[in-house]
Amino acid sequence: MSKVITPQEEDYSKWYNDIVVEADLADHSAVRGCMVIKPHGYAIWEKMQQALDKMFKDTGHVNAYFPLFIPKSLFEAEEKNAEGFAKECAIVTHYRLKSDPQNKGKLIVDPEAKLDEELIVRPTSEAIIWNTYRGWIESYRDLPLLINQWANVVRWEMRTRLFLRTTEFLWQEGHTAHATREEAIEETKKMLEVYADFAENWMAVPVIKGVKTPNERFAGADDTYTIEALMQDGKALQAGTSHFLGQNFAKAFDVKFANKEGKLDHVWATSWGVSTRLMGALIMSHSDNNGLVIPPKLAPTQVVIVPIYKGDEGLKKLAEVAAVIKAKLQQRNVTVKFDDRDSHRPGWKFAEYELKGIPVRIALGERDLSNGTVEVARRDNLTKEVVKIDEIETYIVNLLEEIQSNLFKRALERREQMSHQANTFDEFKKILDEKAGFVYAHWDGTSETEEKIKEETKATIRCIPLNNKQEQGTCIYTGKPSTQRVLFARAY
Amino acid sequence: MSKVITPQEEDYSKWYNDIVVEADLADHSAVRGCMVIKPHGYAIWEKMQQALDKMFKDTGHVNAYFPLFIPKSLFEAEEKNAEGFAKECAIVTHYRLKSDPQNKGKLIVDPEAKLDEELIVRPTSEAIIWNTYRGWIESYRDLPLLINQWANVVRWEMRTRLFLRTTEFLWQEGHTAHATREEAIEETKKMLEVYADFAENWMAVPVIKGVKTPNERFAGADDTYTIEALMQDGKALQAGTSHFLGQNFAKAFDVKFANKEGKLDHVWATSWGVSTRLMGALIMSHSDNNGLVIPPKLAPTQVVIVPIYKGDEGLKKLAEVAAVIKAKLQQRNVTVKFDDRDSHRPGWKFAEYELKGIPVRIALGERDLSNGTVEVARRDNLTKEVVKIDEIETYIVNLLEEIQSNLFKRALERREQMSHQANTFDEFKKILDEKAGFVYAHWDGTSETEEKIKEETKATIRCIPLNNKQEQGTCIYTGKPSTQRVLFARAY
Repeated sequence: MSKVITPQEEDYSKWYNDIVVEADLADHSAVRGCMVIKPHGYAIWEKMQQALDKMFKDTGHVNAYFPLFIPKSLFEAEEKNAEGFAKECAIVTHYRLKSDPQNKGKLIVDPEAKLDEELIVRPTSEAIIWNTYRGWIESYRDLPLLINQWANVVRWEMRTRLFLRTTEFLWQEGHTAHATREEAIEETKKMLEVYADFAENWMAVPVIKGVKTPNERFAGADDTYTIEALMQDGKALQAGTSHFLGQNFAKAFDVKFANKEGKLDHVWATSWGVSTRLMGALIMSHSDNNGLVIPPKLAPTQVVIVPIYKGDEGLKKLAEVAAVIKAKLQQRNVTVKFDDRDSHRPGWKFAEYELKGIPVRIALGERDLSNGTVEVARRDNLTKEVVKIDEIETYIVNLLEEIQSNLFKRALERREQMSHQANTFDEFKKILDEKAGFVYAHWDGTSETEEKIKEETKATIRCIPLNNKQEQGTCIYTGKPSTQRVLFARAY
Repeated sequence: MSKVITPQEEDYSKWYNDIVVEADLADHSAVRGCMVIKPHGYAIWEKMQQALDKMFKDTGHVNAYFPLFIPKSLFEAEEKNAEGFAKECAIVTHYRLKSDPQNKGKLIVDPEAKLDEELIVRPTSEAIIWNTYRGWIESYRDLPLLINQWANVVRWEMRTRLFLRTTEFLWQEGHTAHATREEAIEETKKMLEVYADFAENWMAVPVIKGVKTPNERFAGADDTYTIEALMQDGKALQAGTSHFLGQNFAKAFDVKFANKEGKLDHVWATSWGVSTRLMGALIMSHSDNNGLVIPPKLAPTQVVIVPIYKGDEGLKKLAEVAAVIKAKLQQRNVTVKFDDRDSHRPGWKFAEYELKGIPVRIALGERDLSNGTVEVARRDNLTKEVVKIDEIETYIVNLLEEIQSNLFKRALERREQMSHQANTFDEFKKILDEKAGFVYAHWDGTSETEEKIKEETKATIRCIPLNNKQEQGTCIYTGKPSTQRVLFARAY
């Protein structure tokens, strides 16, 4: 194998980058902090989109599309939101280039084409959407409004990493409007459940559901719910958030509705999103030193058949058998690729598909043919088995399910092993430095303490888990009384 | 019906705008020239995307995603392309806002956060993609590269119209790389066929396939192929283009490959795209004074069932029958909605679904129930029929096919009626002013003549049709000899 992946143990960060680049998921681009999502990476993202989109529609949401640009005056209307994003905005100031009189063939910004009002490239779309909702909502009959958007957004990040933190990224953002506070909170929680369901049952990534502390809330939200996953290196990754926005945006953009009694009130809002960051979570949950591992439900190709043959005649015979296997599997909704390229040797192909994370590989040799068998290799645990061709479709269908659940089980076990309780600040720091992972600890509930712990340890409160066990204790930092442990970790 | 559509005969342009806004397809936004695509409009666009995406994949293409921004130095590398788009570019010059010291709560662009190199918001992605391809292509083994991208693009238009010409729009852009000129030309033509197939068999919009004159070529292309549709008012609409880019971008971005003999050569390129402009073509091909008409294959909801009842008990009985009909139709892959809202009367619902273009409406009344029948109304020709419930699913499946083909037939007949031949310039002008439509006329083949005809009549050469009949003639404008008629029209 010519492509070399740095082992995890040697340098986790480099391992991650090697997987992303060598498995053809994404690459750096000529634009600072922006990535190119390569076909293999994009195909996985498309599978994620399809699954999520169906879940959104099944819960009554529809898609729409709002402008990329936000006029500055709208952007600044909701003050907390504006303040939260102001420092990381790409800003369009001009709308025309012209020939450079000093430099033939070159272009310069035309100073005469300066915009009267600057346009912000959306870092999130609450402002433009709530400005639009004002025209769409008059009475309770127009509510709820349950809208989602698939889009690109831009946040000017100083330190970027492929998928995890890029200047431009792809995401979906749901923006809903409700007649009551209760209904909006219910929606916020419902979408958190959808995200948790997707993370666990599609990505095979176990997550902790919880509420963010005020410090870690989305700018402009009254409450932020989150799902938190734990990566192999013991760092947490925020995988999706769902925000209860109260009436903040309705007030900023003057969006009112008449209730059944004809009384006017401001509308209640939620927003929720997941992004291409999920690709990072997927990679860092399952992959190994041989490359990417994709859960079968998100694999663009679930099974690859590689023929091992000599000469055209040999290939022809194998191709016939492969076609039968492929057809049988496709009937069971398995996506199969038969790689009969003569430009690469079987060993090269084995390594390539291993690197790219294809869940199951079927090797089809001339000797097998006479025995009526094939060799089936699993990507998740790298084991092989000889299987009768007659029984192949049932075997593969079961195997794909087995791999999907095994990946989840493995990730869950790892998370449990890496989840700790700390009762003193020394213990807390020791765990972070020596074991990493999630640390459940008592906290006095103040932002000051949270910030001091962060300064001293780089660990943040990932969330206050939902349905958290109530127990008496004392804050690890200040010793003040506390009624529950919260979830700390160093995070991506 | 409270929503009023201006009749076509009164003001075609206003009629179009009314349909777009009142049928909830799109609306103007707070951002100059940018639209909001509303849920009903977006659902139709999604159906288009799904059909096109499958066609692209069936012809061997894969999706990927490239950055929104293009550094100015890359943008200007292919000179003709840069020149073609320079005057309509949104330009990012800064990456941060800060509090306005003069005006509490307001933000200003932070002058210290000026970019060293400006970023162009992509008007099309050849530059960033070919700069990326340089790193992906080394030898003939890496070719062909058959990549498509679904994305938003920005072109700063001075006069905008919903869907037809907006500053930001959604599209797909295919960008392929090939080892030979012949293969690239073949790809260019293949994708033109895909577009024509989609326009005619999904949108029910007949198109003329042809080649653009050098004047009308895509900036940076050696040849531009197009499909041209004719709208109800006799104006042409360019519905999709496929470009043979020669080696222009490979040369500008230094993209070379080693052939089988190890010799280096520049790569051959194509690009091709369709956009949300197709929504405009769809609307202006089929809709009428009652509202939108959607071809069944692109209708998010194909059939709506409206109950006509008195009291809860009445609704309950009808709901049971509706559920059976719905289930039967869904089994035949028909998308059905049962509208049992008690907030609106049946008459209001009839008008609403007519306005929104739902192909088939089933009215389910208590009297019908006792007869075992329902009333089925077609949106395309507004006729109604009483149908036995026992036979409903076969009837509806056939009816949807019938509507799909009727819409195409109707549009084709209209186009034929509006297609003319002109042999003199006077005749040419008279047809344009009195009849409008397509005009086939002889042209001397020069850009000068083309431009003069455009100046004097506002008509442009839409294309030189593929497999055009060769015949001797004289140019309508200069009288010079010509060997074929080309297709003229006033256009959107």
